[in-house]
Amino acid sequence: MTAQAHVGVEAELERYGHITDVALRSSTPTGQPDRYLYNLITNYPQRGGKRLRPALCMAACEAFGGRIEESIPSAVAIELLHTAFLIHDDIEDESELRRGQPTLHDQHGVALALNAGDALAILGMAPLRDNVELVGHRLAGRISDEFTAMALHTLEGQAQELGWIRDNVVDLMPSHYLNMVMRKTCWYTTIHPLRVGALIGSVGAINPDRMNDFGFHLGAAFQIRDDILNLRGSETQLGKEILGDLLEGKRTLMLIDVLLRADGNDRAMILDFLGRQRTTRTMDEARTIRDLMDHHGSIDLADSYARLYTARAHDIYADSLGRSANTSAGRFLRRIIDYMIERSN
Amino acid sequence: MTAQAHVGVEAELERYGHITDVALRSSTPTGQPDRYLYNLITNYPQRGGKRLRPALCMAACEAFGGRIEESIPSAVAIELLHTAFLIHDDIEDESELRRGQPTLHDQHGVALALNAGDALAILGMAPLRDNVELVGHRLAGRISDEFTAMALHTLEGQAQELGWIRDNVVDLMPSHYLNMVMRKTCWYTTIHPLRVGALIGSVGAINPDRMNDFGFHLGAAFQIRDDILNLRGSETQLGKEILGDLLEGKRTLMLIDVLLRADGNDRAMILDFLGRQRTTRTMDEARTIRDLMDHHGSIDLADSYARLYTARAHDIYADSLGRSANTSAGRFLRRIIDYMIERSN
Repeated sequence: MTAQAHVGVEAELERYGHITDVALRSSTPTGQPDRYLYNLITNYPQRGGKRLRPALCMAACEAFGGRIEESIPSAVAIELLHTAFLIHDDIEDESELRRGQPTLHDQHGVALALNAGDALAILGMAPLRDNVELVGHRLAGRISDEFTAMALHTLEGQAQELGWIRDNVVDLMPSHYLNMVMRKTCWYTTIHPLRVGALIGSVGAINPDRMNDFGFHLGAAFQIRDDILNLRGSETQLGKEILGDLLEGKRTLMLIDVLLRADGNDRAMILDFLGRQRTTRTMDEARTIRDLMDHHGSIDLADSYARLYTARAHDIYADSLGRSANTSAGRFLRRIIDYMIERSN
Repeated sequence: MTAQAHVGVEAELERYGHITDVALRSSTPTGQPDRYLYNLITNYPQRGGKRLRPALCMAACEAFGGRIEESIPSAVAIELLHTAFLIHDDIEDESELRRGQPTLHDQHGVALALNAGDALAILGMAPLRDNVELVGHRLAGRISDEFTAMALHTLEGQAQELGWIRDNVVDLMPSHYLNMVMRKTCWYTTIHPLRVGALIGSVGAINPDRMNDFGFHLGAAFQIRDDILNLRGSETQLGKEILGDLLEGKRTLMLIDVLLRADGNDRAMILDFLGRQRTTRTMDEARTIRDLMDHHGSIDLADSYARLYTARAHDIYADSLGRSANTSAGRFLRRIIDYMIERSN
């Protein structure tokens, strides 16, 4: 991707992000107790974020002929649920940094953070009620069903990943990872926003399944890039702990691959690391495993997967979008493909 | 309450409970991963439970002229959300026992339990979609709004209670407790089920606010009885740790009152206990504080509050229910008033 194209994508993300932020503010009420609840629910959104999911939803809506306003409640609902997931993920993963600051449970304790995440999940449903007036009962109901299904897929994928860590499963193949990522990441990050945007834009006329394959390739590339940045990126740019995934024992493509390739003492060292409690794992050990991943080409392999997925997304873009491919918003959805693997945060 | 009346209430609770259980089973899907997610979401419901909230909703629906079937999705939605809250509460409170067995996070770890609670909250919304066909778009939308508001009230009350514990607030008055309980307990346990039942039964004709006062007195009596049972009840009957509230530092009426009455070394001992981490508090200390509560009449005072509230619920029953007071379901709602303070689990 040329620097110019990159700038173009980020400018458009910013434009959609601004619309999202205005709507987010009116979807996160103030109230009492503010110091124990309402201040907490605006904490993560105020730290920034790419607002990628709302952007995909609004762009798909526009690409399929809708007005951006019609997609705003659905787009905001996704971002609110995303924020709820971030708070709960940080508790589940015992993460320490989010968007450059201590995680919410580090700031307020697990109990209040968990409770604030619950409130955000509930608040995430509320905007969907506005769909009734915007797009009619029938389509509004369909979007609510899509939302429930999407949330469940995400929680299934999350359960799968957490379960592998808890049970220290070490004999996974890349296909297991991809199946997990399809649910944990793709549904709520790309597939659902695209499906709902397309449904609203076409007033329910198109079959949203046509977005699944495009969304999967986009979302998988996004997640793999996320995993790679966690090994190679800059903590300042990312705002979260480098090597955090390794310390948490996350079953990334790189970890799965290095477990398949390393042998002897190297493999024994990795297995010992994974077999211990998170709190006993050291940063030095994590660096050693990252170096093993480098040595065995596991990070390059993951990068190849991501590039394969973006190439495939380009291939199926025209078929997925159909006549919407040549709209301005449609072209944004094409340009965002490479952004998924070029981004540095 | 005579023994016979008590049996009558429990038999009716069981009848409503059976209907709830059948509907619960069809609202909790199976799927993958079962061992990390879907088995977890049926865990607490399978342990039993009074199904009090669905019973109130169904009875109110019948009392106001509706068919029981019309209220089932709304009743099940409340029970699913209740289960989600139980799982998250147990994590927040670091509880060890629930319905006679180890808490879900003790069985599966905090991460998977938290995630399963999220799934139950999402699944709790799903039945509300069935309301569209059962009671029409307009009323279904209204019930969804009621559900969101109820959930937020509950999370506000929960945040308030957790915040007092975290900040070790020791200068509370009974009115603070009652305001907190109004939100933490009454909205989702009594007020919302009664409001929604009345709305469905009357096909949206009555103003549901007329149920608020009755619901508050019922719910406050229920919570105070819960708090007292935690001090005086039997662990076998309750299925949760006796004195658990004290060990957690919960600001009950009894704790607030004993802090107002005890002085000298006694007060210093309680303040020292509350000022320390939960893990360092001992059962012996909790027993000493319970004895101080006994000595100062704090438990009797709480019991008086509960009796005052049930008496008041009797007083306003006829006005709240209106012509529905003399229906069979209406009489159940009157009989359940005393059950709130007579129950032993």
